[in-house]
Amino acid sequence: MDVWGGDFAPLEIVKGLKEAHSSEYTLVALGPREELLALYRDFGMDENDFPIEDAPQVIHMQEHPAEAVKKKPNSSICRGIQLLAQRKVDAFISAGNSGAVMAAAWLGLKHIAEIERPAITALIPNTCSYCVLLDVGANVDCKPKHLFHFGIMGAEYAKIVLGIPRPRVGLLSIGEEEGKGNELVKAAYQLFKERKNELNFEFVGNAEGQNIVDGTVDVVVCDGFTGNALLKFGEGLIELIAFFLEREIRDPGFRERFQALWKKLDRSEYGGAPLLGVEGVCIICHGKSKARDIKSAVLRAKELVEQGILEKIRERLAHFSLEG
Amino acid sequence: MDVWGGDFAPLEIVKGLKEAHSSEYTLVALGPREELLALYRDFGMDENDFPIEDAPQVIHMQEHPAEAVKKKPNSSICRGIQLLAQRKVDAFISAGNSGAVMAAAWLGLKHIAEIERPAITALIPNTCSYCVLLDVGANVDCKPKHLFHFGIMGAEYAKIVLGIPRPRVGLLSIGEEEGKGNELVKAAYQLFKERKNELNFEFVGNAEGQNIVDGTVDVVVCDGFTGNALLKFGEGLIELIAFFLEREIRDPGFRERFQALWKKLDRSEYGGAPLLGVEGVCIICHGKSKARDIKSAVLRAKELVEQGILEKIRERLAHFSLEG
Repeated sequence: MDVWGGDFAPLEIVKGLKEAHSSEYTLVALGPREELLALYRDFGMDENDFPIEDAPQVIHMQEHPAEAVKKKPNSSICRGIQLLAQRKVDAFISAGNSGAVMAAAWLGLKHIAEIERPAITALIPNTCSYCVLLDVGANVDCKPKHLFHFGIMGAEYAKIVLGIPRPRVGLLSIGEEEGKGNELVKAAYQLFKERKNELNFEFVGNAEGQNIVDGTVDVVVCDGFTGNALLKFGEGLIELIAFFLEREIRDPGFRERFQALWKKLDRSEYGGAPLLGVEGVCIICHGKSKARDIKSAVLRAKELVEQGILEKIRERLAHFSLEG
Repeated sequence: MDVWGGDFAPLEIVKGLKEAHSSEYTLVALGPREELLALYRDFGMDENDFPIEDAPQVIHMQEHPAEAVKKKPNSSICRGIQLLAQRKVDAFISAGNSGAVMAAAWLGLKHIAEIERPAITALIPNTCSYCVLLDVGANVDCKPKHLFHFGIMGAEYAKIVLGIPRPRVGLLSIGEEEGKGNELVKAAYQLFKERKNELNFEFVGNAEGQNIVDGTVDVVVCDGFTGNALLKFGEGLIELIAFFLEREIRDPGFRERFQALWKKLDRSEYGGAPLLGVEGVCIICHGKSKARDIKSAVLRAKELVEQGILEKIRERLAHFSLEG
């Protein structure tokens, strides 16, 4: 756990660490040792329960990712990725500079099989459950085969996280019919279509923006530029609606139910966004993560490790080899 | 007015026509003449008030746009664009097959100055007013100069519709800093930056998804693939939230205020989405448009014609000539 990353670090991260404590796993805290020990004293935590991996350097939220990773090998982010690469930990979680986490993972971890582009994978609430959306920001310019790989990875993730044996996977486009969309999407469509019978998920063709939230698809694949813009627009829209509704709500009983709903819609319950495609479970949390978000990311990491997400992706990729 | 286009055509369109009646302009109805007359009788409308332009052919919502436009020159969409090209009308409004409207406008209308790609322009509510977002679906693959032109057109539109003398224009990207984004956005950024001092709007650099709704920018420019995905995702998200809230709302007083808010957030109040860049005011309404949407599109069209949107765009473009 990167304790020194995020808008509310280190306090909320340490609180989350404490809340997530369990005999089923060990949580290793990454950060400056002395300061961590001081926090442990404040929170009544014991180093035996939460072993410390000293990371004296700090990568700040606004630092240039690639440069920061290069300059600060002893930062909590770089040390965490190193531990993951050495298999000393099973998963790494950070709410810090997400670009730096990606850069460190990209450089420090092998990619699974022939994956060229790891993808950040978000869960978006819909009418009945959640929709897996990827990529939401790791790759701004994609090739068709990258989208195909996102589909394979997203499907394996959906099976574990949503518990669906055969997820419905759609390609984000504008218009449902084959042939609609930009050049990238049209080419990716063909990759999925040609391999339709070998896939262990249902390729449903093009999906439109509304399908991410209407419960008709389980996984939606897109380039990281579009996915990131969508995700941030969605967050903004939810805040906008909350802003308007707050002015209208007078009934305290409703307010409570309203906030419970918001908790579901809000990013906080998502359990973080794994970077799929690298050899290691690496979860990127929202910069605004609070203790409960950190706890849900820990539970998500546990689930992914136990269910063998890496092995499952590796195994599926062995079936396909894409050229170019 | 295309009376034969939209999910609720012709009834809701005729109702909208009647509601929008004014001595300040004349509304010309496009559709099969006999059927229109029958509707006029039902609604107590007079052909002297609402002249009819006979359009016996109908382009359906699911038809292939380019083929339909080619095959049906006497459809309400094609006839409307013809009237606009001949300057027999000042504006054309349709809630029909939006691809067909675009195709007919593309083929039948000249483009303003050196505009290669007309753009569909939406208004998105934000905390204080609205944000102009373009392109939301006309151009799936764009070049940097197209985005630059969208900025110029969007700014003129914002001046008229939002009444802002010097709009803040942002380029949709992921990350605020210069250099963030995909290849398209990075190149477009340079076009804006190099001409910064000649612009009659404020180029604020990159905007992120949340900035569309947080009131920090007045115009957001993006390619039509991303814009369309955003718009549809936003619509879906609003429906999702309404779906959840409906279950929670018991207080009838709140329900009313809630619905008034929804009316604002809902696409219905937007007044349609003009296709900017063609020589003619051409407004595309949502397929689900009802009478009040049609009326607000009429008022929007009147405003754009009176304020001379075409002349203003033409004049601004005369300042810039982009190669390649």
